[in-house]
Amino acid sequence: MVERALRHAAIIGAGISGLTTGKMLGDYGVPYTTFESSDRIGGNWAFGNPNGHSSAYRSLHIDTSRHRLSFKDFPMPEHYPDFPHHSEIKAYLDDYAAAFGLLDNIEFGNGVQHAARTTDGRWCVRDQRGDDREFDFLVVANGHHWDPRFAEFPGDFAGQTIHSHDYIDPRTPLDLSGKRILVVGIGNSAADITVELSSKSLDNAVTLSTRSSAWIVPKYIAGRPGDAYWRTTPHLPLGLQRKALQMMMPLMGTDPTLYGLPPANHKLFEAHPTQSVELPLRLGSGDVTPKPNVSRLDGDTVYFEDGTSSSFDVIVYATGYDITFPFFDPEFVSAPGNHIRLYKRIFKPGIDNLAFVGFAQSVPTLFPFVECQSRVVAAYAVGRYDLPPIDEMERIIDSDQQLHNGHTTESPRHTQQVDYFVYEHDIRTRELPLGAKRAAVRGFTTQAPTSRPLQDIR
Amino acid sequence: MVERALRHAAIIGAGISGLTTGKMLGDYGVPYTTFESSDRIGGNWAFGNPNGHSSAYRSLHIDTSRHRLSFKDFPMPEHYPDFPHHSEIKAYLDDYAAAFGLLDNIEFGNGVQHAARTTDGRWCVRDQRGDDREFDFLVVANGHHWDPRFAEFPGDFAGQTIHSHDYIDPRTPLDLSGKRILVVGIGNSAADITVELSSKSLDNAVTLSTRSSAWIVPKYIAGRPGDAYWRTTPHLPLGLQRKALQMMMPLMGTDPTLYGLPPANHKLFEAHPTQSVELPLRLGSGDVTPKPNVSRLDGDTVYFEDGTSSSFDVIVYATGYDITFPFFDPEFVSAPGNHIRLYKRIFKPGIDNLAFVGFAQSVPTLFPFVECQSRVVAAYAVGRYDLPPIDEMERIIDSDQQLHNGHTTESPRHTQQVDYFVYEHDIRTRELPLGAKRAAVRGFTTQAPTSRPLQDIR
Repeated sequence: MVERALRHAAIIGAGISGLTTGKMLGDYGVPYTTFESSDRIGGNWAFGNPNGHSSAYRSLHIDTSRHRLSFKDFPMPEHYPDFPHHSEIKAYLDDYAAAFGLLDNIEFGNGVQHAARTTDGRWCVRDQRGDDREFDFLVVANGHHWDPRFAEFPGDFAGQTIHSHDYIDPRTPLDLSGKRILVVGIGNSAADITVELSSKSLDNAVTLSTRSSAWIVPKYIAGRPGDAYWRTTPHLPLGLQRKALQMMMPLMGTDPTLYGLPPANHKLFEAHPTQSVELPLRLGSGDVTPKPNVSRLDGDTVYFEDGTSSSFDVIVYATGYDITFPFFDPEFVSAPGNHIRLYKRIFKPGIDNLAFVGFAQSVPTLFPFVECQSRVVAAYAVGRYDLPPIDEMERIIDSDQQLHNGHTTESPRHTQQVDYFVYEHDIRTRELPLGAKRAAVRGFTTQAPTSRPLQDIR
Repeated sequence: MVERALRHAAIIGAGISGLTTGKMLGDYGVPYTTFESSDRIGGNWAFGNPNGHSSAYRSLHIDTSRHRLSFKDFPMPEHYPDFPHHSEIKAYLDDYAAAFGLLDNIEFGNGVQHAARTTDGRWCVRDQRGDDREFDFLVVANGHHWDPRFAEFPGDFAGQTIHSHDYIDPRTPLDLSGKRILVVGIGNSAADITVELSSKSLDNAVTLSTRSSAWIVPKYIAGRPGDAYWRTTPHLPLGLQRKALQMMMPLMGTDPTLYGLPPANHKLFEAHPTQSVELPLRLGSGDVTPKPNVSRLDGDTVYFEDGTSSSFDVIVYATGYDITFPFFDPEFVSAPGNHIRLYKRIFKPGIDNLAFVGFAQSVPTLFPFVECQSRVVAAYAVGRYDLPPIDEMERIIDSDQQLHNGHTTESPRHTQQVDYFVYEHDIRTRELPLGAKRAAVRGFTTQAPTSRPLQDIR
């Protein structure tokens, strides 16, 4: 019997991915330290997070309904609304951390400056305080919605520019009233900010420009949260199921061209749809002017690809985020164009003591997805799960990508798309049992005794 | 041959009803004078109307789509959005008035102080300047959305109170930010104002209380304006058609109880539904707290009929409007509880030189409705249309009321509900031809020669 040597783990970040990973490692008896640059947990969901890593605006409500969003082992309070506000998500995460004693393992105000492998393959983590700390296992959970990506257009814009990451409300950080405003992008942030700024009471003239366009789905369908209807099954081809949904969706008015926007450059549900009931109304009420992609900038004038042009005071770039790992040497691990090849979106083939959690656009829900990933990570840490050979991992990365992103656009926004139900079913019914067999063949013992029976791994 | 003696008509008001009436009287060659208390046309649609008769708030968009709303003889500009803003409606009315030369007949800044019949049955109109003017025919078109009606609750409220009539935007006339606000009512104004004030950026806590509740229908269905699907036919019983719509509507999530509001006290489409895609979302996001009717007020506390209570800084009464005729002696004509018995909602049986235009909640569209009514009024003025005997009118008033409002609530908000398609079909195919026959029997000549062939009357 050999012992897997992942005795002490380091987790980078105490957002949802870091929290669930900490919780699962704790459940499996793995000692760990979580490095958190902020003075609080929650990452993106800690509105006004002093570490600058929250992209939440004041009016942000999550686009996933309460029931879909809940952690499987910690249901959201029954009194929560269907689509909780960011402050409610933060309170829920605080309760989660308190319920499972997660705060004890977090070093607040102490992020990771640098992480590199030592000559003997362990991890040397230099923390914010300048200390070098050694760990056996590193879990990267620093999130993928904090490093703003700007669209790059030819020319220069003379007005003010802001990224949605920094947008708080119509008065903060810029006074966005009585202005000619161009919002670039078509994701949920773009839709929410466009709707908020086009309120007649602010006296703005708001234009929305998109290159890729997007299908627009309502948050409510027939009085129930729209995602209550979203239940793909792993027992039918995903393409077929998406086709069925695509056929139903005209009924919902999802086609952006209905409202003057460019046609989507992908099929419905091949990329994360934009959830907004208000945006179609604002476009149809003339409160928002739709435009195709920007072709160039010149002073206060913006030229669009349809040959039209307009003058603006402000451009709001709601153009998404880059996945970056500032603590890694770029040649070690990076994600150019948000592409990063990870086995089950967790493991980097060839580095057997490194895991990533939460680097996906899981549709329709993210929280149970990171919970599912953290289960794999914890099982791996204690030797109850092992990886296949590197070449097999590479093959499966390709086929998984094909499965989840078949016809998807190459846009950085969409590279990370995962169907939650298909992913979770694969992990639970196939990957964990196979990985347990692989671990048994190698004769791993579990590193630390736990009182939990094996089925809990699932 | 006798001549109908309606030689010179007076119209009270230059809103949509007064304008269409003027246009039709002009078309039929009837001299008329329009009395308008304001310095501009448009009435309710003249935002900030100095005569105080506009209830438009800054963000108001009409709830009827452009195509449904258009006057039949003056289409809305093609470049207008699906749901025009009040400023676009006003511009459209200005264009309408200019195109048909209507401004020449309007006395601006000269409303009607008092109107009474003279001993010989003509009309004596005392205008704002104090002059007494005589007319043969009086058309009342002073509107029904300008005289605010407040809900009456036991007790006293210590905070601020405002009616939706006076609401302009979150800063005008009250600073409605950082406040605990109760909105009373469930009509379109209540929904719009609730949505606007519950924007997170205003930091209000907004509660919505309704007694009657209402069905909530989206402005867009499958990417087309919802009212594009609304096409009742006069060839099937209206109750049956409403039943069919009622059966389909669960798909649209129209039931207010889905969002925590009280159940509607009427069936769908028996009363004007509330059109809002945003209100259900705000309720489902916890940004608006739903409550049943108010039971009593006490200081800053409001008690509700479910036994709960909350404290508020402001109450917004979006509780509708009274139909009032301040220029008539109350014992002559009034509309207690908004009930007024009018033949085809135009003529008061027994007074043969008085007409009313625009006193109905015509669903799904108002502008073609007033146009249709003004056609009857003009045909009547020139003797091409005559009324049936008084007892027959009274019978038909009852049967029309039964037809349009069969099971409708007695609420003052709903007494005026008319199905536009059924009404227009009745006027065009039955009432005008029958009225023409009645006029022929009485041997009326037309008062003034016109170049228009008879079919234009229809």
